[in-house]
Amino acid sequence: MLKGYNLIGQAESAEGDQVLQVFSTVAQETLPENFIVATAEEIDEAVNKATIAFETYKNVSPLRRAVFLETIAEEIMAVGDLLIQRAMLESGLPEGRLTGERGRTTGQLKLFAELLREGSWVEAVIDTALPDRKPLPRADLRKMLVPIGPVAVFGASNFPFAFSTAGGDTASALAAGNPVIVKAHEAHLGTNELMASAVRAAIEKCGMPDGTFSFVIGSGAVTGRQLVKHPGIKAIGFTGSFTAGMSIFKTASNERETPIPVYAEMSSINPVLLLPQKLQNDHEAVAIMLAGSVTLGAGQFCTNPGVLFLMDDEASAALINKLAELLANVPAAPMLNPAVCNNYYKSRQSLASDEAVTTIYYGEDNASAYKGSPALLQVSDAAFISNPALQHEVFGPASLVVVCKTRASMLQALQSLQGQLTGSVIGENKDIENFADCIAALSSKVGRVVYNNIPTGVEVCHAMVHGGPFPATTDARSTSVGTEAIKRFVRPVCLQDCPHDFLPEALKNDNPLGIMRKLNGQYTNEMIEFES
Amino acid sequence: MLKGYNLIGQAESAEGDQVLQVFSTVAQETLPENFIVATAEEIDEAVNKATIAFETYKNVSPLRRAVFLETIAEEIMAVGDLLIQRAMLESGLPEGRLTGERGRTTGQLKLFAELLREGSWVEAVIDTALPDRKPLPRADLRKMLVPIGPVAVFGASNFPFAFSTAGGDTASALAAGNPVIVKAHEAHLGTNELMASAVRAAIEKCGMPDGTFSFVIGSGAVTGRQLVKHPGIKAIGFTGSFTAGMSIFKTASNERETPIPVYAEMSSINPVLLLPQKLQNDHEAVAIMLAGSVTLGAGQFCTNPGVLFLMDDEASAALINKLAELLANVPAAPMLNPAVCNNYYKSRQSLASDEAVTTIYYGEDNASAYKGSPALLQVSDAAFISNPALQHEVFGPASLVVVCKTRASMLQALQSLQGQLTGSVIGENKDIENFADCIAALSSKVGRVVYNNIPTGVEVCHAMVHGGPFPATTDARSTSVGTEAIKRFVRPVCLQDCPHDFLPEALKNDNPLGIMRKLNGQYTNEMIEFES
Repeated sequence: MLKGYNLIGQAESAEGDQVLQVFSTVAQETLPENFIVATAEEIDEAVNKATIAFETYKNVSPLRRAVFLETIAEEIMAVGDLLIQRAMLESGLPEGRLTGERGRTTGQLKLFAELLREGSWVEAVIDTALPDRKPLPRADLRKMLVPIGPVAVFGASNFPFAFSTAGGDTASALAAGNPVIVKAHEAHLGTNELMASAVRAAIEKCGMPDGTFSFVIGSGAVTGRQLVKHPGIKAIGFTGSFTAGMSIFKTASNERETPIPVYAEMSSINPVLLLPQKLQNDHEAVAIMLAGSVTLGAGQFCTNPGVLFLMDDEASAALINKLAELLANVPAAPMLNPAVCNNYYKSRQSLASDEAVTTIYYGEDNASAYKGSPALLQVSDAAFISNPALQHEVFGPASLVVVCKTRASMLQALQSLQGQLTGSVIGENKDIENFADCIAALSSKVGRVVYNNIPTGVEVCHAMVHGGPFPATTDARSTSVGTEAIKRFVRPVCLQDCPHDFLPEALKNDNPLGIMRKLNGQYTNEMIEFES
Repeated sequence: MLKGYNLIGQAESAEGDQVLQVFSTVAQETLPENFIVATAEEIDEAVNKATIAFETYKNVSPLRRAVFLETIAEEIMAVGDLLIQRAMLESGLPEGRLTGERGRTTGQLKLFAELLREGSWVEAVIDTALPDRKPLPRADLRKMLVPIGPVAVFGASNFPFAFSTAGGDTASALAAGNPVIVKAHEAHLGTNELMASAVRAAIEKCGMPDGTFSFVIGSGAVTGRQLVKHPGIKAIGFTGSFTAGMSIFKTASNERETPIPVYAEMSSINPVLLLPQKLQNDHEAVAIMLAGSVTLGAGQFCTNPGVLFLMDDEASAALINKLAELLANVPAAPMLNPAVCNNYYKSRQSLASDEAVTTIYYGEDNASAYKGSPALLQVSDAAFISNPALQHEVFGPASLVVVCKTRASMLQALQSLQGQLTGSVIGENKDIENFADCIAALSSKVGRVVYNNIPTGVEVCHAMVHGGPFPATTDARSTSVGTEAIKRFVRPVCLQDCPHDFLPEALKNDNPLGIMRKLNGQYTNEMIEFES
């Protein structure tokens, strides 16, 4: 069934003589299929096709792009159970989770289609001419966002659907009007091929240009690097480890003549602030909630709560005990792939062996079965503040408790935090008042502040920010989840005194798209009326 | 009158033992005042003060920030004629131009104040909770833009007011809620001190925190680099040469642990497309318009038209003749400083001496008087396409005509262009139809497309895009002129299930600021009503 090709535009291509295979942590064996690594020429051809396709695709009407995205969603469903089964084998994730993730992925495509139909996302801004202004007249100036060109997408192993081949980066780049070239994730090459077949079918059905979508197979160090360096690539979307993300960022900064936006979502330990009144009232419920979040999906979420801040009091001690007890009852669960599993045990061990760190619960090493067991570690505020190495992400079901002597030292500990995707505040309203400075410090480090809930679970909606200050991402100005993600792959263009017949629809006087626009500084979805 | 200090927060500081002086091209002498180069400790102190000030300043209400910006504008006017006189001496620019530029600078501050009063620029997006949604409820999610922290500003020599100490970068960074540290431009250190005194007085009057604004004196290579590398700096605004801009960009990319946004507006040759029907009808008027734009301010505008594309026909020949004749009648004019002047003659000579380039008019070298004389050069489409060196910016009153044999070769020449701030189309509607592909190619390379007008003259308004693909800027997603410039110095933050009392004003249910918001995907300035 799986052929192991690269998809160069609409053409299957397998010119190379190197192959990759996928190891399944659930089957505990290497899967039989061979996937052919793309040659340098195939990568070039993919970018060339994308560059040519861009000239057509950027002018495809928003409505047709919306239908295209919806068709991708339909085609993904049409792949059927095969997709789920293959992803289970390749990611070790359970069926229910993958079925849900597929729904999220198709929902995401449909939400971008909705955004295109609504149309206001192009941020049309119009300043009408002031021919009689003194000392100089003002020209007619009209601005909107336009797509930037071929986007290279690097998916994540932990979301083989939603953050990979046809995931959020691809959906938002295509929605904006850009062709996409995916560097297929080495851990789920079969899933990638199946997903790509859905995109390819949608391109065919909707008459989109050849080159609107391609994928190439290979390592990050060779195939990925070639993509990142290619002058035809105009932006990069990446989700994965800090090391891989920074390698892409550095390659883009230093090995390209032309700098491009690099949106790498990388590393986050998602601090949780556990406030005293709340723990005093309700430490059990908080412990249950936290244990669920720490171990969800074997802790393999970028929003996994990796560090918990609390005051040194009785309620905190009770919370820690309860949390340890709950974690001890969570069985080790299959991890995504051997590399993720080995890395988990290695980084957990490295954290635990720090002399300032004490172990509260430490599940046994289950690396031989590729399963991750939970762990809970503890450190003092002073030690946390003085040693940034304690902030290294441990990707898996482990969390570090930081016990704070005073509110002042808690504040200092929070101020010492690096940038994060999320920060959570578990507290009564009274706590929120009392710890206002701590919450402000936390908020200044994160892309999303969660109140009285866990950070895992990222809603795909308009208001979502899945991003945050470095090292959570390389670009805190953006989100990789939600409709605002489309803004990563556009740039503004201003048209000055453009004859009306040649204006794009979004900027025409009669506002044929009916979108919200900023007209002479005021928002309106009305047409422009000129005084006679 | 001038003291030559650094301004570290509100304090005058002159700890260093190195001095800078300013050479006046109009007085043709070194001005007597000594300006004390900042020490490393002074720069550190400026950043530390800014970091502390940020904690207060970011929470100053938009209304108070608006008054602050307006007060800066008032204080600039209060400096009076002294400011104009000093700037004339330091920049060689004439009084009328500088009086106009001062108006532009105060107008810019007032426009940002207006933007803050209107308030919608924070892009509030609200998705209300769906507690009954299946399979999972949706949380209440609310997003808005927040300031990012201390911004380092590097001004330009050619706009000593509007793109310097209290210019667009400073105004937009302060408007967004960020403290600013200016690296004083070495060519107008006295002007900088006078401008800074206005900002300082406004801080005092409005009770803004110490550290909201500082400036430091020194070279780009030492003082500038220390600022760029400083961990406390969260973004950089720069306007100037390609070399200086790229040096900042590379330092920020490679010598910082934490990447930050670098908005460098650098180099642009502002292509002008001169279309045949228009030239046939009206070549004289076009020549007059172009001659004015090429020589305006001795050609020292980042939007100066440096390359003109036209077809190889009689009307084009007539245009070239007329333009050469007009340029020959424009006397050499004082340039900003010796470096700019020497660089002009050097880069003009380098272009003229290319074997493919012919000289149409070549004003005599007036470098000894620091004056720039116009020049008009010519090259074939084929030569232009094959040699990217012909695209190097010649900063001054010179322009290169590219004569195109066919529409196809014109298209190819335009496709070979690097990124630009502006592209102009001089044509009848018939031309615009006939050359649609050429205009599309041009548009894909620029931040602003100007129809039937010159690119010089950048309106400060809502729809302006003063930016563009590399090497025009390092970040084509942004503009450095107009209200959208504020978006460079912010990042989005999402609040999930934040108790209503703790929400910022912009996100509260009753919309107390009356701003335009996106509510469940629809734009509205209404309050949020909940079904009971």
